[in-house]
Formats: sequence, structure tokens, C-alpha cells
Amino acid sequence: MYIGIDIGGRSIKIGIVNKDGEILYQNNTDTKVELGYEKIRDNLFKLIDDTFDIADQKKYDIRAMGIGVPGIADPENNYIIYATNLKWKNVPLGRDLKANYNLPIYIDNDATVAGIAESVRGVTKGYKNSIFVTLGTGVGGGLIINDRVYSGSHNKGSEIGHMIIGENFYDCNCGNNGCLETFASATAIDKYTQKLIDEGFKDEEFMKALSRNENIIDTKLVFDLAKANNKLALKSINRMTDYLSIGLSNLINLLNPDIIAIGGGVSKAGDYLLEQINDKIINYVTFKEGKTSEIKTSQLGNDAGIIGAALISEYK
Amino acid sequence: MYIGIDIGGRSIKIGIVNKDGEILYQNNTDTKVELGYEKIRDNLFKLIDDTFDIADQKKYDIRAMGIGVPGIADPENNYIIYATNLKWKNVPLGRDLKANYNLPIYIDNDATVAGIAESVRGVTKGYKNSIFVTLGTGVGGGLIINDRVYSGSHNKGSEIGHMIIGENFYDCNCGNNGCLETFASATAIDKYTQKLIDEGFKDEEFMKALSRNENIIDTKLVFDLAKANNKLALKSINRMTDYLSIGLSNLINLLNPDIIAIGGGVSKAGDYLLEQINDKIINYVTFKEGKTSEIKTSQLGNDAGIIGAALISEYK
Repeated sequence: MYIGIDIGGRSIKIGIVNKDGEILYQNNTDTKVELGYEKIRDNLFKLIDDTFDIADQKKYDIRAMGIGVPGIADPENNYIIYATNLKWKNVPLGRDLKANYNLPIYIDNDATVAGIAESVRGVTKGYKNSIFVTLGTGVGGGLIINDRVYSGSHNKGSEIGHMIIGENFYDCNCGNNGCLETFASATAIDKYTQKLIDEGFKDEEFMKALSRNENIIDTKLVFDLAKANNKLALKSINRMTDYLSIGLSNLINLLNPDIIAIGGGVSKAGDYLLEQINDKIINYVTFKEGKTSEIKTSQLGNDAGIIGAALISEYK
Repeated sequence: MYIGIDIGGRSIKIGIVNKDGEILYQNNTDTKVELGYEKIRDNLFKLIDDTFDIADQKKYDIRAMGIGVPGIADPENNYIIYATNLKWKNVPLGRDLKANYNLPIYIDNDATVAGIAESVRGVTKGYKNSIFVTLGTGVGGGLIINDRVYSGSHNKGSEIGHMIIGENFYDCNCGNNGCLETFASATAIDKYTQKLIDEGFKDEEFMKALSRNENIIDTKLVFDLAKANNKLALKSINRMTDYLSIGLSNLINLLNPDIIAIGGGVSKAGDYLLEQINDKIINYVTFKEGKTSEIKTSQLGNDAGIIGAALISEYK
């Protein structure tokens, strides 16, 4: 058995997971980012202690503990180097955990962890080489190469969202211009749709739907309207899938995995998204004949964080 | 001992190589592309037979034979799928070799093979994860991940030259627009320099040097003039290093190797090129603190093809 912990901006989730990725017990608490690292850590320790109590009661043998964080972790120093949404910078989570719990501890990026989960019991199960791409507020990625997590020599790889693929009308949070994230995230869709309206794209149907949505442009609204052939929405989604296809083709031309799994909020557009992408990718892929990488939407939902974190040790 | 064969558009080189990458014997013949596959293959067989005679005389025990080709090879079917410069399409080189020689035979792309050679006794030696980028007429790549060649699930990966990174004034041979190859190859430098002249960029100094060079724009001329601070040449090289830095940063953000080795004709610009790239890459790399991927020029010259091909088996 393994303990998996998913630290997000809103909640900390914990679970006891078996090697098939089944969650045997789970619990959670609010993150409360405003408390700062040390108090959040103490709340986390309480959650872990409770989970060990359950494990003892059920006589589960816990072999390792894994933590997924929304940032970059340095495994050598057991520090979390950087987690913007948690307002953490160089916090010693790994060291603190090691001081308290006598078992192997692994920390990794949340997209990497979600990629592991898909590999354990999701859409990339059974494939040697897979890429998990999460399209949410930002764009993240996790690479599985030869059945192992690959994050690069200094754990700074798999930053798919910051691959530069063109020029864009606004800069990325990272400071650069043209990152995939600024074309293919939920934020990107919303911003470009707003830009079209600001520039005077007249679409009564869209404006009516927008007012029914409390004047909030969100990705679901834009996708729903695009599916109904609304012109403004189509223009926005069409641009997004153009650039996403370029980004995914770059990954295929470079890494040619068995499969790319698309997760995150935007992936809820499902087959509609996949059809558009598949139609476009064939134009960008260098070798068009014979077998190449498949693209599918991810299968696991909110539990992916716990499952993947629990099983990091099996993919290292 | 191993036999390594490097099939290029001009010559076929063969060598007997030990596991340290030292060439103990070598020979070569003209390729004569116009003869077509079967005659070229027969010439190759003669070259191989002669090499085996030498091996017998010297009592070398040959364990495997590897071939580097300027194209894509399908290892499962032992076919060469595609080699533009040789005018080969779906030729059964692997099968024909297996029918004639009773030892393990490996075929791979020439950039992958050069990457292996650098890893055996060049600049990437001793590094677990490395990327070899060749900047010549086109842009090619070879990936070493966890001390093994990585070419993807269907052998269609490591196509670094076809990573789309922006928009360009001419299309790539592959049919797409914006491939790294159209910004960072020798061809790209020459084309952009010509474009500047065509558009009326006045530079007497450049035109004088050009006429001394028999009015041929080549990459050496442009780099030499850029080093001497010529304005036209600087503009051209500056644009090339901008885009090359974006391409290399995409690789670092995605794969974060220990090292990227730059080879091919353009790499002869040496430290001048490296300085410019290193100055620019820091702007594009997502994680700027701590250790990250190094960039160096390759160490091996013309023999890289023989050495790398000979040792493919050790990197599979």
C-alpha cells in the first residue's frame, strides 16, 4: 500500500492506494493558502497521522508516500523549489516529512503525478511512452518514457506549457511571448474571445448567451456555443485548436509517444476537441504514413492526484 | 569489435570500431546516388566483404553491424522508409543485409548516430541525458535518454528540425511553415541574408566580400562578417540565434537534458555561436535558478558517422 497526497490551491487530498491504483481510503482538508507554509504543513501532518492510524487499524503495510504539488520540486534536496499558487518558495517539505515519517518520500509536479495515474489505471495504461497534457488555467505536462517518469536531469523538464510556438497578443506569466499556454489554456480561450468582442466582432447570439452566463466568458460557454456553430465561438476555438495541434505535433515529432492524453478542464470538450485536433495534426506531423502517436482525453478525474502521487515510487 | 557504416549522399564510409569508439580500420566509396538502390547496395556489400576480410586477418570478433542513413529507418521491418538525399523510398536494406550477414544489424538516422558517437567519445560522454542537434543544410536531432537512444514508439521522433516555433517568410521542405530548420539551418541563414539584399539592405562592405566569394552567399561568409561586426551579417546571424535559442529552450523546458551538443556545418562558428545562444537562452528557460542544461559544440568530425553507427547496438 502507498499513501498519496495531492496538494492543490484549494484542498489537500490524501489517500491509501494499492498498486493497481485503487483508493482504499481517502480524506481531505482545506489548504488555506493564507496560513503560510508552516501551518499548512502542520495541518498536512495531522492528515497524514490520521491516515497512518487507519492504515494501522486495517493492518495495511505502507511502502512509500508520494506528494503532488502545483510547482517544481527538487528531488535531490527534498525541497519544493517553487509553487506559485501556494505562495511557496524554497520550502523544505521533503525534509520536514522525512524528519517525521520513516518511509521513502517522493515529491513531484502535479501534472507528472496525473500522468502517472493515467498510466496506472487510465487511458495511457499499458503504453511504454506517453505524454499527459493538462489544459486548465495553465498548460502542464508529464512525460512517461520507457515506463518511467521523465522530468529531466535537474527535474526541470516536462514544461510543455512554455514551449514557444508562435507570437501572441499577450505575454505569458513566465515573461515570454508565444508559449503554448497562452494559446491553448482555458485562460487563453477566454482572453482571445474577449479580445474579439473588444475589437468589435458583432455576434448577437453570443452576446445573448453571454448575458445568460452573467456576462462571464468561460471555456465551457465558448465550447458549447462553438458546438452549436456560433461564429464568434468557432473563431476562438478554431484558433485554439490550430495552436494546440502545432504544440502536440511538436511533441509527436520530437518524442513520438504511443499516446498523448489530454486532461484538465478544457478536455471536457471531449470528442469535439479530439476531432478538430486530429484533423489538424496530420498536417503538422513530419511522418504521415504508418502508425504514429494517438491522442485521447484522460479518463481519471479528481482522484488522479492521489493515485499518481501514491505511485510515484513505482515510476522512478 | 563492431562494424559501422555511414551512408551519405556523397560517400559511403565503413569502419571497424572498438567499444571505446576508436576506429581500427576504415575505408570508403562514392555513393553515386544516380545508380539507384540495388547497385548502391551491391557496392556496399563489396565494401562490407572487404572489411570482414580485414577483420578475419586481424582476428577481430565482430559483434554487430550498424548503419547510419540520412533519413528515417523502421527497425521493426528493417526497411529504410525514407531517405530523400539518396532518393530511397521503402528500400529493404535491413532485410538485404540480414540475408547476407549473420550478425545483429541496426539501422538508424544519421543525426541519432552522430549523437551516439558524441556520447561514446565526444562532448556528451558520461552524461545520462543528452540531445545532439545538427545544424547543416537542414536541422536534425538525436536524443539519448537514460543512457539509451530514444527515437519514440514508432521510430518517428527526434525530428527537432520540424518543431514549429514561429512564422517564416518561406515554407519548409516538409510543407509546413515555421519549422526550426527554416530559421536555424545553413540554408536558412543564406536565404534570409539573400532576402535582406533583395529588399534593398545597403551594405557596401558585405557586397565587396560577397564579390570576393564569387557572389555566393554561404554560412561561413555570413558568420565571418558578423564576427567582424558587419551590419548586414549581424542582422542575419542575430535573427538565426534568436530562433535557435527559442528552439533549444523548448528542448530544455521539455527534456532538460544534462547537455545539448551542437554539430553540423553551422557549429563551426564555435564560441561565437555559443556565446550568443547562451545569452539568449536564459530569457526563454522557465526555471532560471540553479543547474540546468549546458550547451556545447560537438567534438567529433567526419568520423562520427562510423563510430556512432558501429555502436548503435550498445545504446539500444
